[in-house]
Amino acid sequence: MGTQFQKIGLLGKYQDPSTGPCLLKLAQLVHQLGLELFVEAESAVHMGGSALPHAVTTLEEIGQHCDLAIVLGGDGTLLGAARSLCLYGVPLLGVNLGRLGFLADVSLEQMEHALPAILAGDYVLDRRTLLLGSIWRDGGYVLHQAPALNDVVVHKGNFARMIEFDTYINGDFVYTLRSDGLIVSTPTGSTAYALSAGGPILEPSLEAMLLVPICPHTLSNRPLVVSDQATLRICINDTRNNPAQVSFDGHKTYNLHNADEIHISRAACAATLIHPKGGSHYQVLRQKLHWAEHLGDA
Amino acid sequence: MGTQFQKIGLLGKYQDPSTGPCLLKLAQLVHQLGLELFVEAESAVHMGGSALPHAVTTLEEIGQHCDLAIVLGGDGTLLGAARSLCLYGVPLLGVNLGRLGFLADVSLEQMEHALPAILAGDYVLDRRTLLLGSIWRDGGYVLHQAPALNDVVVHKGNFARMIEFDTYINGDFVYTLRSDGLIVSTPTGSTAYALSAGGPILEPSLEAMLLVPICPHTLSNRPLVVSDQATLRICINDTRNNPAQVSFDGHKTYNLHNADEIHISRAACAATLIHPKGGSHYQVLRQKLHWAEHLGDA
Amino acid sequence: MGTQFQKIGLLGKYQDPSTGPCLLKLAQLVHQLGLELFVEAESAVHMGGSALPHAVTTLEEIGQHCDLAIVLGGDGTLLGAARSLCLYGVPLLGVNLGRLGFLADVSLEQMEHALPAILAGDYVLDRRTLLLGSIWRDGGYVLHQAPALNDVVVHKGNFARMIEFDTYINGDFVYTLRSDGLIVSTPTGSTAYALSAGGPILEPSLEAMLLVPICPHTLSNRPLVVSDQATLRICINDTRNNPAQVSFDGHKTYNLHNADEIHISRAACAATLIHPKGGSHYQVLRQKLHWAEHLGDA
Amino acid sequence: MGTQFQKIGLLGKYQDPSTGPCLLKLAQLVHQLGLELFVEAESAVHMGGSALPHAVTTLEEIGQHCDLAIVLGGDGTLLGAARSLCLYGVPLLGVNLGRLGFLADVSLEQMEHALPAILAGDYVLDRRTLLLGSIWRDGGYVLHQAPALNDVVVHKGNFARMIEFDTYINGDFVYTLRSDGLIVSTPTGSTAYALSAGGPILEPSLEAMLLVPICPHTLSNRPLVVSDQATLRICINDTRNNPAQVSFDGHKTYNLHNADEIHISRAACAATLIHPKGGSHYQVLRQKLHWAEHLGDA
Repeated sequence: MGTQFQKIGLLGKYQDPSTGPCLLKLAQLVHQLGLELFVEAESAVHMGGSALPHAVTTLEEIGQHCDLAIVLGGDGTLLGAARSLCLYGVPLLGVNLGRLGFLADVSLEQMEHALPAILAGDYVLDRRTLLLGSIWRDGGYVLHQAPALNDVVVHKGNFARMIEFDTYINGDFVYTLRSDGLIVSTPTGSTAYALSAGGPILEPSLEAMLLVPICPHTLSNRPLVVSDQATLRICINDTRNNPAQVSFDGHKTYNLHNADEIHISRAACAATLIHPKGGSHYQVLRQKLHWAEHLGDA
Repeated sequence: MGTQFQKIGLLGKYQDPSTGPCLLKLAQLVHQLGLELFVEAESAVHMGGSALPHAVTTLEEIGQHCDLAIVLGGDGTLLGAARSLCLYGVPLLGVNLGRLGFLADVSLEQMEHALPAILAGDYVLDRRTLLLGSIWRDGGYVLHQAPALNDVVVHKGNFARMIEFDTYINGDFVYTLRSDGLIVSTPTGSTAYALSAGGPILEPSLEAMLLVPICPHTLSNRPLVVSDQATLRICINDTRNNPAQVSFDGHKTYNLHNADEIHISRAACAATLIHPKGGSHYQVLRQKLHWAEHLGDA
Repeated sequence: MGTQFQKIGLLGKYQDPSTGPCLLKLAQLVHQLGLELFVEAESAVHMGGSALPHAVTTLEEIGQHCDLAIVLGGDGTLLGAARSLCLYGVPLLGVNLGRLGFLADVSLEQMEHALPAILAGDYVLDRRTLLLGSIWRDGGYVLHQAPALNDVVVHKGNFARMIEFDTYINGDFVYTLRSDGLIVSTPTGSTAYALSAGGPILEPSLEAMLLVPICPHTLSNRPLVVSDQATLRICINDTRNNPAQVSFDGHKTYNLHNADEIHISRAACAATLIHPKGGSHYQVLRQKLHWAEHLGDA
Repeated sequence: MGTQFQKIGLLGKYQDPSTGPCLLKLAQLVHQLGLELFVEAESAVHMGGSALPHAVTTLEEIGQHCDLAIVLGGDGTLLGAARSLCLYGVPLLGVNLGRLGFLADVSLEQMEHALPAILAGDYVLDRRTLLLGSIWRDGGYVLHQAPALNDVVVHKGNFARMIEFDTYINGDFVYTLRSDGLIVSTPTGSTAYALSAGGPILEPSLEAMLLVPICPHTLSNRPLVVSDQATLRICINDTRNNPAQVSFDGHKTYNLHNADEIHISRAACAATLIHPKGGSHYQVLRQKLHWAEHLGDA
């Protein structure tokens, strides 16, 4: 098939054997279309002894060699794939396992039509920015650094008390926040945890970062939207009573010390999602947030 | 002085030596008014070698023998005293250390007029209900039981993921909540953590319990207000991914297991606050919540 | 049939000819069960030349003579019927026209089983308090007085500016509110307009009133829940720039003058809803508010 | 004085004679600094028979001829001046009458130091985008068109019922909104009405528009933030029951018909505010929103 997408990567939900039959179905589809298939090693195990020819490979090699990566799972699986593959620029096609995702918005059934259409050039690229967060300790050494497609969250640890920290945007002091934490989110993350905490919904392509306080002590500490060119600095205050933590996409969590600083800015690389034409971000929002429904005739 | 309040208990903020001079001032005031003084042992240490005659005693003895207990500190100190003393019915007079509290609403300076006025019968009693929360494990044994004047909070533990649990009111299934947790609050607690999490303010004497989800996944999981005659049951679902915890007044925290149940109902005893006449709960709200202020003429 | 409900009233959605067939079906059901039928005059018109024996009567006569009133329509229709019939104590059975209501929670299809069951004594009575609101003008004369099953709402009139008014509860000054208005709601009304404005959900039987500011200028002016034994007084401030209005259940609206006062307290009479056994208020909430649904696996 | 600002315009709060002494003080300051003064005609009336040399002129001439316009009043006064003067690009210096404004953030007292400093080049320019809203009727004719520095608001008219309309962003259908209205706001307007309605705070320079539903019927209709390059279209649905209205900066209001459309996009011109150096937008937010304050030690 004459398409720019010749080498197709395939990976599934982490450590979920039940994805096997779906992975096989996708492999078959790729095979029928005459494309080369590279399956991520852990996912390949779930496919069992597939007779279909395919290479078994690492995520990094999919990033380096493939023209398109099919990611089977929910939004969580796609978040992980995007963090790993954003360095390589390979477009990610998210296939959900039955429940529509904000990111994984194509179903297995739709793939039979969606994949040929995409190969034929009938697609939309959807560039999503990532954040890069670093933990600075002892006045200068970087303890850890990680990307996040949804959010970097500073939150209270294993205890029932508020934490307190100072926040700076481009060096300007914003506030001393006493709260359960602070969510710093990309537009992509604005429909995830930030939404539960009271934040607005940001258009995916908006060049902005969103700051949503979690249960702030001061009721007027409302969500803030700032340019994603900004550099954010969060300085942990006295943590004797309650050690704070920081999480990247709700995935990896690190314990913070008193006077630790979290620096957050837009990552240099971005994730590229690929969608069949004809969909719309608002259509997904309407369906997932029940916007079409009304409460009654009261 | 011919008053119903002859034996006065005195206790101060926990482990705070800086309360010494204020405790001495209150002791002197009690002495000048010709009343008998009982100082809680830990607080007495901070008073140093006071020449004023006073008995050093335990909190329980203050509950058993005193007609009035003066509690110096903030709302946190008063919460602790109320939990300990609610069995005995002794009225609590909260004296704040400078910053107006929702509960500790008399300043040290005001005490010179407030205490004689109260002794003369010029006071208002303010009965505050408490909750009684119990942790049930293995289908029937009560692991722990504790009162709370503000709230019983089920919340996620040392991890960045949501928890999930089923909630029942008087045996009726309410919802499966996916969230950071659930605050079950008294009217007193409605101006504390529940307010930060988006709850309404309940009149202190309202016979109601307040349920406020913390960052709920489903946006329509709004705060609920139910009768305080209700019995609430919270059943922890699968906790493999994230052990939940339960806290009483943000003070004591217990780790929960899968299938643990938290039962919450109104406690049999109540705390009795005593206020000088002429104040008003709404006056405190206006001052603490800046209700008198406007943002501008926009 | 040996039942306490012998005389059945029937009324339908106001001025809606399309209710005709449904009214006829309900009339037939009542007839088959051997009961006496009284149809409200306007509704009778929509039934056309029904051969079924029935008396055509007024709403008041239904209240005076019937043992049960079947109300066909949505929540709005039931609100109107409840306001008119609450003086008489006749229980109201709300039948919806296809979309589940908070109040009209039985469908036409369910009626074939629900009505016989109710006649057989298998029912739950559900008493709903009403508010009574009065407009006081010129320091003492009552311009208008009306009941409300959902809410009495003071709101800005035909103009884009905020209004300002003082609020008192039992004579205690609460706040000067600058806002688009204030919703004073029953527990029944807590799932109507008050919910859209950010209020909590009150259990229907809770003896409480709910005050929800509409877009308040001061962000800490949060919803308040007070005892329904309270008397509320709202005093309109200078209205030169923007005449305020008051509405009762969103139905009747009156223009207010400067210095008008709105007095609100619990009405002496209550509405009685009747439900087939086995339902639950929380079941209705779960269905109407999509509580069973989750956003994804993020 | 060797400065780029030689010709200074001066205008005060609309129809407020009490501004006279403050205007005189500002005029004197301008005179002392050796600059040329142009006073807007209505404001000049309030200055009475000032002996200071100054030209009396129109707002348009201030826009055409002046290098700087001093605007005395609150944020409302500055909003009006900005709408009128944005075509000309003249920087606006907002001087408040005692209460700090989000826009008018210099006090009369501070002007003695602030004005010389600004003339000496010690200033910050602060470009604020405006929206341009148009009302389209009968499928094509523009009934009215107006700029807004804060917001274009579609809202219910003189009645207690919700309105309903469809919203499109760049031609993509977003939702059918049933609500009290919709606020379409600039970043500047995000601290005005949009904040009261539950919106986030946008950094003034963010190139975004904010959509905040007013009391939406569907609880998940949360605020949206989209690029200010977008074109918004709001199509009014059946208005038989409740005529909708549209307002520009809460100032001018127009009645809408069924099927009217409101088109909103970023205006070609922008307003330029001028501030003395050393201030910060977050400092103003902290002060106006009481961010420095905490509720207590609960």
